[in-house]
Parts: sequence; C-alpha cells; structure tokens
Amino acid sequence: MDAQLPEPEPLKALVDALRRLPGVGVRSARRMAYHLLQNDQVGAQRLSQALASALQQLRHCQRCNNFTEDDLCATCANPRRDPSLLCVVENPADQNTLESTHGYRGLYYVLMGRLSPLEGVGPVELEFERLLKRACDGEVKEVILATNFTPEGETTAHYLTELLRARGLTVSRLARGVPAGSELEYVDAGTLAWALIERRNA
Amino acid sequence: MDAQLPEPEPLKALVDALRRLPGVGVRSARRMAYHLLQNDQVGAQRLSQALASALQQLRHCQRCNNFTEDDLCATCANPRRDPSLLCVVENPADQNTLESTHGYRGLYYVLMGRLSPLEGVGPVELEFERLLKRACDGEVKEVILATNFTPEGETTAHYLTELLRARGLTVSRLARGVPAGSELEYVDAGTLAWALIERRNA
Ligand SMILES: [Zn+2]
Ligand SMILES: [Zn+2]
Repeated sequence: MDAQLPEPEPLKALVDALRRLPGVGVRSARRMAYHLLQNDQVGAQRLSQALASALQQLRHCQRCNNFTEDDLCATCANPRRDPSLLCVVENPADQNTLESTHGYRGLYYVLMGRLSPLEGVGPVELEFERLLKRACDGEVKEVILATNFTPEGETTAHYLTELLRARGLTVSRLARGVPAGSELEYVDAGTLAWALIERRNA
Repeated sequence: MDAQLPEPEPLKALVDALRRLPGVGVRSARRMAYHLLQNDQVGAQRLSQALASALQQLRHCQRCNNFTEDDLCATCANPRRDPSLLCVVENPADQNTLESTHGYRGLYYVLMGRLSPLEGVGPVELEFERLLKRACDGEVKEVILATNFTPEGETTAHYLTELLRARGLTVSRLARGVPAGSELEYVDAGTLAWALIERRNA
C-alpha cells in the first residue's frame, strides 16, 4: 500500500490489528474492518469490550492451566472428579469435546499448544515442568494423553510419555481405530492399518 | 457446544464476538481467542483499542462517503483534484488501488458496498440518492464507474448508468481487456471475448 495514500490513521490501525489474528491476511483484515465500521458497529463495540474483559478477567487455572476467572477452574474445584486420572489435552476446545462424551470423570491438564519446533514451540514454551509437577502430586496414578492425532500431537504425546513414565506414572493414549458408525469402505487406509494393529478380542 | 460445560463467560463472549467477523466460523473464532489470550495479549489489547478508536474517530466524508476523521476527507479537501470527474468505487481499498496508479486526478465516491439483492442490499441501503445528489452538484461532468467486474459490480454499474444518464451526466466504465503484460494463452476466454469486442485502432 502506498504510504502517501490519504487513509485515516484509525482505519489503518484497525486493519493492522486485525491482521495479527491467525489466518487473517491484509485483504480479509480490510473486509473485516469495512464490515464492522459500515455494517456492524454493535459487533465492533462488542468485540472491543470482549477483548478487554477477557484480558482483564481470564487467567490460567493453577492446577490445569485452562482459562478461568478464579484461581481454580470449575472442573478442578469439583470434588466429584476422580483425582487419580489426569487427561492431557492441547487446548480448551479439546477438553470441551471430551466432556461432551460424558464418559470421563477424571481431571485435565491443558497444554495450550503442542510441540512445534518449526514454530519455536518446545518443552520450555509449553512449560512441561509445570505439567510434570502437577502429574507428580501423589494423587495422580494415570495420565491419559489426548493430544491430537496429527504429527505434532503425536510427537507431543511421545515426548510426554517418556517424561511421565520416567517418573513412575502409568501413561495411556486414546485408542486409534475405526470411527463408530463408519463403513470400512470410507475409512482411510492409515486408520484401518492402526485398527488392525490394535485389534482386540471380540 | 454443551451449555453445561464450565467455560468461563469472558472466553465465551470473546469467541461469540469474533464469530461475527465475516468469514469466521466457530472453529476459527476459538483458534483466534486462544491465540490472543495465550500468545498475543499485546495484539488483543491493540485490537480492542483500535476498534474503540475507529468507532469513535471515524465518520463518513460528507462528499465522497469514504471513512475520514474530519467532515471532508483529504482527497475531497484537495483543491488540486479535478472536480469535473467523479469516480465511483465499491470500497476504500478500490480507491487506494486506483490512486496507486497515479493516473487519475479527479474525485471519488465510495459506495461502501454493491447491489446484492440476495443479501438485502438495494439502492436504498447503498443510499444511491446521496450519490445522485453529489453527482448533480453542477461541477461534475463525467462519472466513471469503477465497480468490480463481478456480476454484482456489473449490475451496480448498469443500474447507476441509467440513473446518472437520466440526469444528463456523461457516464463511463473502466475498460475491459487483456491485462498489461499478459500472454494470451493465459487470459480467460471471457476477457478475450471482451477484448475483441472492444478492440481499438492500432
Ligand atoms: Zn483447572
Ligand atoms: Zn471525501
């Protein structure tokens, strides 16, 4: 963009700020800015306030690292959860998805990311020491690794397995296999290969 | 998302506000929220303030409808621009692109949109009356329609041509043709067809 173009400063600043969002290029940022200013000033106001409130009110749960408004999140503070099980997920949405199964009554630890050397995210950035300290509280017996089944999620799981086993903890990983309700014809080969390897007695 | 999940309210509000942005679904909105809160709190702060400042400081130029901090934008207030030429564009980015050619010395009118019946955007929503009043100030001799060469941009241009011609104004449209520097092999058929119809003496 030509620097001499008479674009008002507040508009330029807004486009620049929107460009910092992940996955937003300069064209999307402009489209968003025009849309907010022209067609959704209420939405713009709401977003401005939501950002300020979130920054001010959210912190990390002292035990599980998830976002919370208090020292402890509602899950960690729930005395009916089983403290011997700790499920490690990449982000809060993953925890929500697991909760929606209503099949898990243990606790969680949210990494807020996954190992990604190319993006400069290593064990230090993810504060693995903090997870290890949490997992070694004496109450946790088993750590269930529920990172994604992507290359980066798998690498994270392998790395954590080593660290946690070395501390005498039982470490497990979510099962790989054919999704419930699937027809084999439509399941990809990699998934089928794993389902064969990890086959169980019928 | 299960309403019973213990997600903190400020996080939920932020995700909802981000979802209102054009082209942002719930998954992108979550990714943006986590990124801002976890990795770019400075960016979150900046976006919050940029939105507030833009809402507070930007208004529409009284003459051209572009965003401006004053009653008149810098272009409209420039006495060296030719007031007999008025170029109609869809949005501020289009004006910037035309300015970057350094080939136009007239004035602009920014529609802030284009006709789109399916989205409920008609002549009333685009305030065509305001454009007509502007074009009939007695100084404008020619209106150059520089809306996009998309179906909606073309429809807008056709519609405006009728309205402006009926008021005795000369109306022109940007030329269609082969882009400068193109090899014919790579130019799409529709463009070539127009270039043939609008061929000129060599
Ligand atoms: Zn917690
Ligand atoms: Zn203006």
